[in-house]
Amino acid sequence: MTRAYNFCAGPATLPESVLRQARDEMLDWRGTGMSVMEMSHRSDEFVEIAETAEKDLRELAGVSDDYAVLFMQGGASSQFSTIPLNLLGDKGSADYVNTGIWSKKAIAEASRYGKVNVAASSEDSGFTTIPDQASWQTNADAAYLHYTPNETIGGLEFDFIPESPSVPLVADMSSTMLSRPVDVSKFGLIYAGAQKNIGPSGLVVVIIRKDLLGKARKETPTMMNYQVIADNGSMYNTPATYSWYLAGLTFQWLKGQGGVTAMGEVNLRKARKLYGFIDTNDFYANPIDPRFRSWMNVPFTLADDALNGEFLKGANARGLLNLAGHRSVGGMRASIYNAMPEAGVDALIEYMTEFAKERG
Amino acid sequence: MTRAYNFCAGPATLPESVLRQARDEMLDWRGTGMSVMEMSHRSDEFVEIAETAEKDLRELAGVSDDYAVLFMQGGASSQFSTIPLNLLGDKGSADYVNTGIWSKKAIAEASRYGKVNVAASSEDSGFTTIPDQASWQTNADAAYLHYTPNETIGGLEFDFIPESPSVPLVADMSSTMLSRPVDVSKFGLIYAGAQKNIGPSGLVVVIIRKDLLGKARKETPTMMNYQVIADNGSMYNTPATYSWYLAGLTFQWLKGQGGVTAMGEVNLRKARKLYGFIDTNDFYANPIDPRFRSWMNVPFTLADDALNGEFLKGANARGLLNLAGHRSVGGMRASIYNAMPEAGVDALIEYMTEFAKERG
Repeated sequence: MTRAYNFCAGPATLPESVLRQARDEMLDWRGTGMSVMEMSHRSDEFVEIAETAEKDLRELAGVSDDYAVLFMQGGASSQFSTIPLNLLGDKGSADYVNTGIWSKKAIAEASRYGKVNVAASSEDSGFTTIPDQASWQTNADAAYLHYTPNETIGGLEFDFIPESPSVPLVADMSSTMLSRPVDVSKFGLIYAGAQKNIGPSGLVVVIIRKDLLGKARKETPTMMNYQVIADNGSMYNTPATYSWYLAGLTFQWLKGQGGVTAMGEVNLRKARKLYGFIDTNDFYANPIDPRFRSWMNVPFTLADDALNGEFLKGANARGLLNLAGHRSVGGMRASIYNAMPEAGVDALIEYMTEFAKERG
Repeated sequence: MTRAYNFCAGPATLPESVLRQARDEMLDWRGTGMSVMEMSHRSDEFVEIAETAEKDLRELAGVSDDYAVLFMQGGASSQFSTIPLNLLGDKGSADYVNTGIWSKKAIAEASRYGKVNVAASSEDSGFTTIPDQASWQTNADAAYLHYTPNETIGGLEFDFIPESPSVPLVADMSSTMLSRPVDVSKFGLIYAGAQKNIGPSGLVVVIIRKDLLGKARKETPTMMNYQVIADNGSMYNTPATYSWYLAGLTFQWLKGQGGVTAMGEVNLRKARKLYGFIDTNDFYANPIDPRFRSWMNVPFTLADDALNGEFLKGANARGLLNLAGHRSVGGMRASIYNAMPEAGVDALIEYMTEFAKERG
């Protein structure tokens, strides 16, 4: 097979040009005689790679000097503990919004370190909508307000940034980061596991407002202390250098695509196409409130679950891969991140059309 | 430049055949139409890659079923907290042996979680030797006994495994793992950052005796809880999949070289050659007690420090890279891990000979 269309939710498809460049540079990065993964993280060459990646990310996402950008390890799941350990401080409690499986995981971990107030939840609706902010029960003395802008498994995405004028807003942007323009200045902390829109797994990007540094609890492992990581330019220890390099290549690619504004337009078009098809075809369904449908993760069901196996088999045969839904929810899910070309969505719709005709 | 001889202490040179295979498989792993870094960590393909890597590591290092093998993130520095958080338990104190900069870092971090008893130290000697075990002041009720078999910066390596019949022995093998045969059954826990003998940075391998699982302190971040990681086959969250794959390729390569016994013979020969040369040439010196000289990291000084810059420049011009000593100690250091071919050591000695003749 040549390159397939890979709809995996993460690790996810990467831009083909990024992979080609990584391939071409694998044995000898620009005449150095080394692979990037063989370079000292303190070498001039790697420091330039690292700094360029940070600069490009700042430019793409619009991150001002009021924020530190950290390249850490351990994925978003490590951040679920790192955040309360660093930010709970004297307050001892934080507000969390529960909109699905990833919110719940964040809440469970934070509850081990302090009081969690679930300010709002859409669990009653089966996580198919987002509660209106007017109904949220937030606390003015919470250490922070945490939410999950895009639920990767549920396919539920905020179309607004919550107002939080007095309490720092914290967001798990793992599966929506860089997919559309976002006003970073509204946030205290943004974090994102890389393996969706940024690069390979094993890297997590943290954007933190500098006034939130230096508040870590005494028992915080040094490697989880944002201040330490920031003070050392994410090189307190050896960072995940190769993942950082690949993230940098992806940022370069994204700049070449016109940045997040242009990418957001493509992503909106891809999502509208796919949801539009699902809504107008009786054989497929998506349960999410149309206003809050994810641009990145599109779950859908077939009219008859017994056909799921056949659907997946036919998809695989056409090079449409990883369409099975998360093991916790079943059904199908098409993740259509930045690196999924519009032609991939077209090919999926074409296959879905034929399958519905033949088997519907 | 084609491939250079890269003497970096880590991230370090990798076997060229590993890089070639990674390059060739970058865009399409065995006809799947995906790069390994784009695969779901729960896919059949990746699970096979992961399980094969673990199996090969067990075979290479001689790890029995009494031990769990974990592929974690955050490097050895994260383990400096993870170990006390998981192993201190009710005991509250642990014994540490101080033989250099990495020992000291491990001690500093553990001291944040409990009482550290420095059972032995070679600091008085400038970390040039290992105190005889008969002189160690260990505690029978310590939770564990920690040591650093090879000090990457100092170039000091144990030539024996400490006796610790009643207290679990814990070892930071980051820079010596798989470089020679080791009796794993003598250890409670072995950990190793990957970026020396295993693969790229961003991966840390932990080998833990199963009876030591399940003892984590209440406040341990879930991602640092050995029991959780073991129960989930190192996939509690998305692991560093690409680094795991590369580690697997390196294990395959090492098996092809005849495993750790054959590799140990080559490594001993490489080390003897280089130290032998240094000892017989008046221009160069190595300060370490000959019995405890590292097979992996060979620090050396020039007779005149003022020539360091010229030495490095000439070395770079010949493709002998990263010979500068650690910024904390200066001088030179040649790291000659598994992947450094004997020809690289020969080339280094040839250059050192000429440089001493011309400038000595």
